[in-house]
Amino acid sequence: MKSKREKLTLHPDRFFSPDPATRKIARRLYASVKNLPIVSPHGHVNPQLFSTPGYSFGNPTELFIIPDHYLFRMLYSQGIPLESLGIPRVDGGKTQTSPERIWRIFADNFHLFRGTPTGAWFEYELSEVFGIKYRLSGETAAEIYDEIDKKLKSPGFSPRALFEKFKIEVLATTDAATDTLECHKLIKKSAWSGKIIPTFRPDSILDISQKNWRKTIEHLSEVSATDIHDYETFIRAIKVRREYFKSAGATATDIAAQAPYTEELSKNEAEGIFSRALSGKSNPEDCTRFTAFMIMEMARLSIEDGLVMQLHVGVFRNHNAELFGKFGADKGHDIPIPIEFTKNLKPLLNKYGNNRELALIVFTLDETNYSRELAPLAGHYPAMKVGPAWWFHDSINGMERYRRQITETAGLNNTTGFVDDTRAFLSIPARHDLSRRVDANWIAGLAARHIITLHDAEEMIKDTAYRLAKKAYKL
Amino acid sequence: MKSKREKLTLHPDRFFSPDPATRKIARRLYASVKNLPIVSPHGHVNPQLFSTPGYSFGNPTELFIIPDHYLFRMLYSQGIPLESLGIPRVDGGKTQTSPERIWRIFADNFHLFRGTPTGAWFEYELSEVFGIKYRLSGETAAEIYDEIDKKLKSPGFSPRALFEKFKIEVLATTDAATDTLECHKLIKKSAWSGKIIPTFRPDSILDISQKNWRKTIEHLSEVSATDIHDYETFIRAIKVRREYFKSAGATATDIAAQAPYTEELSKNEAEGIFSRALSGKSNPEDCTRFTAFMIMEMARLSIEDGLVMQLHVGVFRNHNAELFGKFGADKGHDIPIPIEFTKNLKPLLNKYGNNRELALIVFTLDETNYSRELAPLAGHYPAMKVGPAWWFHDSINGMERYRRQITETAGLNNTTGFVDDTRAFLSIPARHDLSRRVDANWIAGLAARHIITLHDAEEMIKDTAYRLAKKAYKL
Amino acid sequence: MKSKREKLTLHPDRFFSPDPATRKIARRLYASVKNLPIVSPHGHVNPQLFSTPGYSFGNPTELFIIPDHYLFRMLYSQGIPLESLGIPRVDGGKTQTSPERIWRIFADNFHLFRGTPTGAWFEYELSEVFGIKYRLSGETAAEIYDEIDKKLKSPGFSPRALFEKFKIEVLATTDAATDTLECHKLIKKSAWSGKIIPTFRPDSILDISQKNWRKTIEHLSEVSATDIHDYETFIRAIKVRREYFKSAGATATDIAAQAPYTEELSKNEAEGIFSRALSGKSNPEDCTRFTAFMIMEMARLSIEDGLVMQLHVGVFRNHNAELFGKFGADKGHDIPIPIEFTKNLKPLLNKYGNNRELALIVFTLDETNYSRELAPLAGHYPAMKVGPAWWFHDSINGMERYRRQITETAGLNNTTGFVDDTRAFLSIPARHDLSRRVDANWIAGLAARHIITLHDAEEMIKDTAYRLAKKAYKL
Repeated sequence: MKSKREKLTLHPDRFFSPDPATRKIARRLYASVKNLPIVSPHGHVNPQLFSTPGYSFGNPTELFIIPDHYLFRMLYSQGIPLESLGIPRVDGGKTQTSPERIWRIFADNFHLFRGTPTGAWFEYELSEVFGIKYRLSGETAAEIYDEIDKKLKSPGFSPRALFEKFKIEVLATTDAATDTLECHKLIKKSAWSGKIIPTFRPDSILDISQKNWRKTIEHLSEVSATDIHDYETFIRAIKVRREYFKSAGATATDIAAQAPYTEELSKNEAEGIFSRALSGKSNPEDCTRFTAFMIMEMARLSIEDGLVMQLHVGVFRNHNAELFGKFGADKGHDIPIPIEFTKNLKPLLNKYGNNRELALIVFTLDETNYSRELAPLAGHYPAMKVGPAWWFHDSINGMERYRRQITETAGLNNTTGFVDDTRAFLSIPARHDLSRRVDANWIAGLAARHIITLHDAEEMIKDTAYRLAKKAYKL
Repeated sequence: MKSKREKLTLHPDRFFSPDPATRKIARRLYASVKNLPIVSPHGHVNPQLFSTPGYSFGNPTELFIIPDHYLFRMLYSQGIPLESLGIPRVDGGKTQTSPERIWRIFADNFHLFRGTPTGAWFEYELSEVFGIKYRLSGETAAEIYDEIDKKLKSPGFSPRALFEKFKIEVLATTDAATDTLECHKLIKKSAWSGKIIPTFRPDSILDISQKNWRKTIEHLSEVSATDIHDYETFIRAIKVRREYFKSAGATATDIAAQAPYTEELSKNEAEGIFSRALSGKSNPEDCTRFTAFMIMEMARLSIEDGLVMQLHVGVFRNHNAELFGKFGADKGHDIPIPIEFTKNLKPLLNKYGNNRELALIVFTLDETNYSRELAPLAGHYPAMKVGPAWWFHDSINGMERYRRQITETAGLNNTTGFVDDTRAFLSIPARHDLSRRVDANWIAGLAARHIITLHDAEEMIKDTAYRLAKKAYKL
Repeated sequence: MKSKREKLTLHPDRFFSPDPATRKIARRLYASVKNLPIVSPHGHVNPQLFSTPGYSFGNPTELFIIPDHYLFRMLYSQGIPLESLGIPRVDGGKTQTSPERIWRIFADNFHLFRGTPTGAWFEYELSEVFGIKYRLSGETAAEIYDEIDKKLKSPGFSPRALFEKFKIEVLATTDAATDTLECHKLIKKSAWSGKIIPTFRPDSILDISQKNWRKTIEHLSEVSATDIHDYETFIRAIKVRREYFKSAGATATDIAAQAPYTEELSKNEAEGIFSRALSGKSNPEDCTRFTAFMIMEMARLSIEDGLVMQLHVGVFRNHNAELFGKFGADKGHDIPIPIEFTKNLKPLLNKYGNNRELALIVFTLDETNYSRELAPLAGHYPAMKVGPAWWFHDSINGMERYRRQITETAGLNNTTGFVDDTRAFLSIPARHDLSRRVDANWIAGLAARHIITLHDAEEMIKDTAYRLAKKAYKL
């Protein structure tokens, strides 16, 4: 059975409820937004795709498998070594080098992705981006590999051409605070009109527990042309950099922290911790309190310069010590932890939450936060919105849970639209399509149950598919 | 589009599944309870409505917006200052005084309530209580305001007339332990037969951390004619007051605590903390332990006098310090927190949970408690029942989650029926109607899936709509 | 109404969605697995049923009520004393002795089980195992009692006959580490070919906080023919016993712990704690750390001998102290608690999680773990799988939540199929049937929404109904 060639067809009603009344409305709502441009306000696409003349995605394995931890973690979980998938080792040790063999392993195990968003996105890419007519399996592996490989070498498959084909209105990258944004500059200078904007991500300069933090601060001094020798100059340098990002088109910042713990420090306390950190004498408590304070400081600076502030919390990074040692970060073993917002965010929200100049978008991986804390907080504080279902949860069921647990308390307008958060450029249309379908189906369900009117439904789908993201990210 | 006049029609099948099989059963179940009297065993309606001759609800803004924190928090979250909504400031500072202008802001922003229970309740009130034919929007704001205003001044819109029109069988208010229940006395003395009963809420006398606690105790001494000078006389005064409430028709008490932490104290420990509190020398640990013990004492007293004991936990009150300073309590920024019951309630349940004389009804705002702790506890201890989906969760999805996460383990009979918990008297029929529809639809779903028989379904809907509340609250 | 005789008919479409498209696929999927043999890799059936010639289930009350804490806890929660249900008291005190009277109480209160899995399983047993034609109620109680009683005395109702009738391919019992497995030996020696295998459960030898731990260790010394005087000999004895279980057919072990806390100890630390425990001088911290380490040691030993390792966590046992004193353990008051896995399991997973020789199956009662921690962990570590919805959650909604919250991240292949976990032998077909129906319906829903193909659906239902359990438990 497994080796039978199965036709690959994306059903036009996919992801919609089988209930005829709901489906009918869902179709209509989806049709009304299907062709709207894609707004991608947060993600990790490499800007080199668009600044490097003749940029190549490589072969199908280099495109789909090696950089995608969503995908190879599933194979790894079933006992397939990362080495045999060609994941590069930190020590340069031997790994599988034949892309065809790696592709074949993936193909042989594609059944593992049944019912997963990874599987749905991949089949969308096969069908809609590459025009493949058969499902991936051991039998079809080689021909599909060849067909993709050929297409990837054709001119229509340059990143810029695809950007236009995908109808992307704006794509935000995520960039270190010390980044000089050379790629973004090159794109701007070029004749090409695609809008690629950076996002200011200060994590590495804020985390004083990192071994190379002092090196990073030296680098920050350099790129900001600011001699950082105390807390005041540190903040001054950050401001310089935020302005630089703004001038390159950035509208937002992004902070990742394990917990959303916030705490106000006095000027003296901040100065004390910073100087201890500079001299390599900070302690773990210093780190915790400094991060907690820096989250608040980023809110303060956002009020000053108008950059939207994103806060991503709730993940224990690099859980598998052995694998981290062998293969480095972002290898599919970042694992969520329980999170509390009500008490943790209180200092920040009490100081800045009533300020309408602040736009704070909060993301979590702990779904218990949705109805318990995030919807009530966003349904009150003018400065705060709830970011969309994130990472493990940007799936069909994940997004449905998000809508059902957030909307009744926070309303749709305290959410921010879809964010694809991906480094896989070719998956962007797949992800937005899935999100638009899931939202169309959810809104159709509300209309079919006469919870909202059809007029409401038509407005809501435009909000979720396009308008909320533009508004929330000031695009 | 937004300014188009849209007809306001409540669909007869609203909130029911679009699936024809389910809908057919839901209709039939709903029809069987639609006209049952309303039992409202817990809420915050002001008894003055019924004791004051010629009581007036004021204008539409005073009725719908100013007292309803569900409603104005949503406007506030979208950047509309509370001052511009006429919410009175603690310092008497300037706020918007034109009710028509406030109404217009609400009307212009009514789209924020799409898919929310607040929106559904409001439209029910417009349509069913006031006979309004169009949806609220900027265009219809003025005419709807005028029509409501006119109706509010007509004789059919007195609280007593509405009470009868709404077919309320009994309405429980919530009253401070020191309240002399003058309104309730007046209602009883009057020729009117409406049943309005008080509920004993001792929070202010139990919380020794409150600044004016000692004043409250003096007040308690006075109204109980008991000289409170130690723990024993304190309990004696409480007993006097509980008897007073019973004689005024009360069948229940209600305690609110941030956490359900319970702890047994020895007589000496209780006495020691109480005397420190009386002399203003109690510490934070004293407060925590005293509250924990008082929750247990309330259970003991309930066993003695038969009053049902309600326990509401899980909310961080007045989260927004600035707003609390400006506008006081109950302004839409009470935010839920994570709660644990299994270990916290153990001392109380171990001491009193096997006693069938105790009727303890537990409410939470942390939905993770439903299947993890509350259903198993209520499915075992004879004294305990799970209160209905509360506050942020008395919505369509909220009530569905409640039923699905509680019933399989606890059974329907360890739950207590719907509680509207509202201070908005005119919203009571809307809330009970929504609850009856959601339950009819849930039970219909069970029958359509042949999980229960139609006979079971017919019994269950009567339980959820009427019988469970009467039984649980001894009405 | 209540006393009306209601026909008992199990609808052929029971538990399927009423949506025609979904139902049609669900029927087809269910039909394809309905007659597959039952694999029961974890449960608590007494092996004496199969080793004792002429074993009798007793009367209907002894069969259905007295041993079933799912059932009598519900009656107890509604105020019916356990004494009146014939539950034996620890002190031998008086309890109801008339099985007919106990049965009548159950019958009179059978409505309490509406919408519960206990009710669904019971009606399946009545209908499919005993051929009863009417629902249980006060009116039908006596005749149903008599009919069951008669059947129980007939030859077709011997455990071995039923085992074959139920088409059980393999049934695993759970047995103390010190058990000599006499029943299993007798079954093997007999002419009967039914496969009953033991499971190694070391809880009593690992928990040094137990009063009679030292007695248990003496017993372990004896049955392992190993003089246990230090940690090394302790582990040696455990190995002897694991081998003994393997030789009796065991493929798995099972550990229960309140929390999944794991910690590595040095040889000296382990030795120190063990010797303090032997001399009765261990402290609470010793107990916690020793349990944490022993969970890791069980993983190490599983890698050595290939036994699958099950870990059941998250329940506070014997919550009701008074009832525990009167009636002993397993009386319906084990209550779940909040659980954290990401940090707690890190030591174990970091040491053994990448080892494909380990098969670790993790169970939780805290459903918040599903999407937050368990799916991401099982979706990465080759050694770990998520056990099925457990105990309070092996219900229709419970299993649906499990599938929806786990599959998108972990995929189906990182789960392990259904486990009935029951001591009620006659309920096994009912439980597997319910599980197969719920899975058929869930998979049908995926197909009806075109999330998967029909081919995928046909494979997935075979996985969930049969193949995953066999593979995960090495059967």
